[in-house]
Amino acid sequence: MNIAVAQSGGPTCAINASLVGVFKQGFKTKSIDAIFGSINGIEGIINDELIDLKGIIKTNEDMELLRQTPSTMLGSCRYKLPDYKTDNKIYEKIRACFEKHRIKVFIYIGGNDSMDTVVKLSEYFKDEVKVIGIPKTIDNDLPVTDHTPGFGSAAKYVATSVQEITRDSSVYSVDSVTIIEIMGRHAGWLTASTCVLKANGEDAPHLIYLPESDFCIKQFVEDVRREQAKHKAVVIAVSEGIEINSEDTALEDFQSGAKDVFGHKYLSGIGRCLEKIVAKEIGCKVRSIELNVMQRCSSHICSKTDIDEAEEIGSAGVITALKGETGKMMCFKRVISSPYAVNIETVDAKEVANHEKLFPKEWINAKGNNVKTAAHKYFLPLIQGEVKIKMNKGMPVHFKRMTDR
Amino acid sequence: MNIAVAQSGGPTCAINASLVGVFKQGFKTKSIDAIFGSINGIEGIINDELIDLKGIIKTNEDMELLRQTPSTMLGSCRYKLPDYKTDNKIYEKIRACFEKHRIKVFIYIGGNDSMDTVVKLSEYFKDEVKVIGIPKTIDNDLPVTDHTPGFGSAAKYVATSVQEITRDSSVYSVDSVTIIEIMGRHAGWLTASTCVLKANGEDAPHLIYLPESDFCIKQFVEDVRREQAKHKAVVIAVSEGIEINSEDTALEDFQSGAKDVFGHKYLSGIGRCLEKIVAKEIGCKVRSIELNVMQRCSSHICSKTDIDEAEEIGSAGVITALKGETGKMMCFKRVISSPYAVNIETVDAKEVANHEKLFPKEWINAKGNNVKTAAHKYFLPLIQGEVKIKMNKGMPVHFKRMTDR
Repeated sequence: MNIAVAQSGGPTCAINASLVGVFKQGFKTKSIDAIFGSINGIEGIINDELIDLKGIIKTNEDMELLRQTPSTMLGSCRYKLPDYKTDNKIYEKIRACFEKHRIKVFIYIGGNDSMDTVVKLSEYFKDEVKVIGIPKTIDNDLPVTDHTPGFGSAAKYVATSVQEITRDSSVYSVDSVTIIEIMGRHAGWLTASTCVLKANGEDAPHLIYLPESDFCIKQFVEDVRREQAKHKAVVIAVSEGIEINSEDTALEDFQSGAKDVFGHKYLSGIGRCLEKIVAKEIGCKVRSIELNVMQRCSSHICSKTDIDEAEEIGSAGVITALKGETGKMMCFKRVISSPYAVNIETVDAKEVANHEKLFPKEWINAKGNNVKTAAHKYFLPLIQGEVKIKMNKGMPVHFKRMTDR
Repeated sequence: MNIAVAQSGGPTCAINASLVGVFKQGFKTKSIDAIFGSINGIEGIINDELIDLKGIIKTNEDMELLRQTPSTMLGSCRYKLPDYKTDNKIYEKIRACFEKHRIKVFIYIGGNDSMDTVVKLSEYFKDEVKVIGIPKTIDNDLPVTDHTPGFGSAAKYVATSVQEITRDSSVYSVDSVTIIEIMGRHAGWLTASTCVLKANGEDAPHLIYLPESDFCIKQFVEDVRREQAKHKAVVIAVSEGIEINSEDTALEDFQSGAKDVFGHKYLSGIGRCLEKIVAKEIGCKVRSIELNVMQRCSSHICSKTDIDEAEEIGSAGVITALKGETGKMMCFKRVISSPYAVNIETVDAKEVANHEKLFPKEWINAKGNNVKTAAHKYFLPLIQGEVKIKMNKGMPVHFKRMTDR
């Protein structure tokens, strides 16, 4: 019997650690012969592009390097499977691949779109092939699971960078406003996580705006003025996903209107928009900074807790499939925040697929411009610990698979 | 006898290490009583805003934390002194401050604008007060010195991030172009330093554009197409300072035209401009990323070589002043690249003030779209080694001086 594993959706710092977890568990299970990696998510199964992972992951050092390598070693996709009741051609291709390679277990590491694939495949293949999802997203927006692998490392990079930017922002004698735009299309988890700086003795960020709250320009300008009375250098964390419900001022070019195949809007530029508002309404020195893709790939400052958990939940996925379960996503259940402890459990992938878990309203303050202390306790355990990164010539060493033409 | 020290210009990861060097040397010199820190560069001297550094740097741990803290602990300024022959009012204020606090040595840590201040003060005060400059800038554009403190840490962050972005850029099966905009107004040192990835086995960045070369849109589009024939995911490093000598296409909004007091243009947005050009001319998936201020403040991945050297050159500045020298900037003279060795020497601050050292033309390839191997040997020693960063609750610990209102 063989198993296959694939990675899907946006890359993170932890998705390769989950791959290592799947590989290690597969490797030590006697009933499993080959562990195939599917290139570019489910596309690799459809197109029969598989690689034998034992052929490229050969040593413990390879596994260590893969754990510290960001992004998806096997490539990724944003492919949405059709409904098999109306179009089963793709499913027949998948069946052909599974049969050709004697694949009885398929592990799909991804976000809520990928769990849609887990649901459809498990319904189509019933007990022929066990299909298990492993959560992954820096957005932390998957239902049921306490948190998602990849989020902790993103939050640690964001916290570290926001703290460093805070130092940088306070050097000159003039008043300034620094706006830091953070990823999160609909859910403000990553932006909210900047509240951990408080636990490290920082006042910043002085204001935190999430898509879960209504945003009003007038209120925003008042908030900034109030913080300026206390702080020479005001630092603001804002989610890329906030929407301005107002016709007040220059709002062009911060929502493109284009949608991807899953119906998501591409959002960008809210930081620059708020920068313009501050410049116009307040007139002080102001700048906006996008943390951009560095949020999801800065493995050099990844969270050890996150990477360790990502590996464990990958392993647990294989064990669950071998027990005969299918159509499930593995999830974390938090036992306690301090001392931190989680259990790994399962949930029907249906409960996760195409759903989003937003940041809880009860953790947002009344003014909608910051988060409450309860959130600190939630976030802090997820960013703890540092992975000792192997370096070469002053730079991190990455595990690389040849992808050039 | 007392000494004063100030920090000026844009912040870096190493400027506080130079402050530690000045402090340590001052502390262990018997003839020096107090070591004053001037708040916001020379402005603190003019306004008599000094702090006794022994009052806030109390332990070895304080010094360690200060070494790992980015930005300028004493604040900074971009103040240009007038010519004392035409306007000596400011100089009289400075004299009053120096006399009041018995300051006989003034150490100014800064870039080429700050060396202008060193020259003017040393000419005005002659032998009354010894004035010594300590170089600092992530731009690495100061004449005479082999390199500048702050540059190595910026280069290490940039190399690490460009490598991580390279992993991130290659996940999907579609062709893509990723444009990374790197700081450097006129000098391309930091952008050029991304060539170190080659020494770590990377092909990326596939194209490197510096302000030192002429930039032509037609050539750029050809370059990108040629690289796309070899690489599915093309990664481009581009200096914020490149200028497009062409009327080919949409060039609005990438040069603001505004100038600061030293006559510098504010440049921004070249990455986005090139992104639009690729989208229009090639039509593939394309994105631009600004590494922004993270380049100058990401101390969590600073270069140990850089931080150690920054401290040493700070100490050497105090020793040089006590020997009776004035109007000098301390500088590095490279003895050999491998095994790396440098000496610390002095240069007339006049030779540095208001001058820029550009990236050497002989290290740029004939097509002006990459750098030659000779540059690797220059850059590599500067990014070597990691500082063991003290963490608290998953985040770096910073040395902080109260600056709130």
